[in-house]
Amino acid sequence: MYAGRPYSQQHNHHYQPPPPGYGSRPPHHSHHQGGFAYQPQGPPAGADPQLWQWFTAVDADHSGSISVTELQTALVNGNWSRFDLDTVKMLMGMFDVDRSGTISYTEFAGLWKYISDWQNVFRHFDRDRSGSIEGHELTEAFRSFGYNLAPSLLTLVEHKYASEPSVGYGPPPGITFDRFVRACVAVKTLTEAFQRIDTDRDGWIQVSYEQFMSIVLAAP
Amino acid sequence: MYAGRPYSQQHNHHYQPPPPGYGSRPPHHSHHQGGFAYQPQGPPAGADPQLWQWFTAVDADHSGSISVTELQTALVNGNWSRFDLDTVKMLMGMFDVDRSGTISYTEFAGLWKYISDWQNVFRHFDRDRSGSIEGHELTEAFRSFGYNLAPSLLTLVEHKYASEPSVGYGPPPGITFDRFVRACVAVKTLTEAFQRIDTDRDGWIQVSYEQFMSIVLAAP
Repeated sequence: MYAGRPYSQQHNHHYQPPPPGYGSRPPHHSHHQGGFAYQPQGPPAGADPQLWQWFTAVDADHSGSISVTELQTALVNGNWSRFDLDTVKMLMGMFDVDRSGTISYTEFAGLWKYISDWQNVFRHFDRDRSGSIEGHELTEAFRSFGYNLAPSLLTLVEHKYASEPSVGYGPPPGITFDRFVRACVAVKTLTEAFQRIDTDRDGWIQVSYEQFMSIVLAAP
Repeated sequence: MYAGRPYSQQHNHHYQPPPPGYGSRPPHHSHHQGGFAYQPQGPPAGADPQLWQWFTAVDADHSGSISVTELQTALVNGNWSRFDLDTVKMLMGMFDVDRSGTISYTEFAGLWKYISDWQNVFRHFDRDRSGSIEGHELTEAFRSFGYNLAPSLLTLVEHKYASEPSVGYGPPPGITFDRFVRACVAVKTLTEAFQRIDTDRDGWIQVSYEQFMSIVLAAP
């Protein structure tokens, strides 16, 4: 049994993970966009030209907003594999602020920053430049985020988020970008849910079946 | 708070779900296959002709076993969408008995039966023949399996396993076949893990952080 405060933040972070919340959601200024809705071909006033360029590239049908399909087509890992549906759903849940089912330019700004931040994190920990995060790289990443996960838990994360099924009993394949982000958000969400119940911070909680299932099913 | 035994089996099943375990794994008789490894083009002795037909169709490169890529190509939902990687990994974990990273004909027999059984379950609960399981169909399915899930939990399952992101605040899109199977296996795995700890069956458990995370990360 693991004693003590296994999940306590260590305050010796070597690397700051992306925004501790669900990314910095962009403010929703629909009236400040210079009639965006009526001029889908032009950028909103004050838009960053490069970001607008990316936005219009992803918005393949030039509708003025990015559909789920367009997002899924645009989001690829280093090996060109598509992001999992679960990752896309997680990102839509974070950045489709008005729940329209599409990503506006303003929402895209937040999504773009979030992904760019995570790309930097990913590149930082992908020490061997393999394009995926393997065993000890994963250990190092979680340690730097302040999660003191037991080796057995790290092995479980490694297997669950590996980008291919395991072969034999050796180490699992690595974790590609989108699954790495999902793994980090899942561990963070679950740990914080645990901590909210563990008010005396002894590393133990008492939960009902419904609480338990709610926590698990709400994590990405 | 939900009192009582929220997850207790009700013994009023209207429909038997597929094998309560991880499907009926086929016995591994590598020596009974008539030299299968040396005659990749021919069926093993006693093979079911139809099943062999399916097996060779999926084994696109005629290597004598099904690779992960071949399996991913062959497994499609009613709307022709591919199975999620997480579902494919779950199935490989269940049926790649010798952990070779590929599915032999013998292993395929078990996988085939498992998927066929689930297809029958899916068709049974997809009352409106929409090709996906929506809200009340999901409720009915879990009720029939003997899981007395609170409405809030069913809503969480509905959102987590929906095959598209939600739009607005209405009901989420339905759950396609592969995600339905994964949802059912996940709820079953989590519930059984909870029950193993809840020895006095009062619907409450005390768990450490490590136990908690282990349970969650081990579920598909």
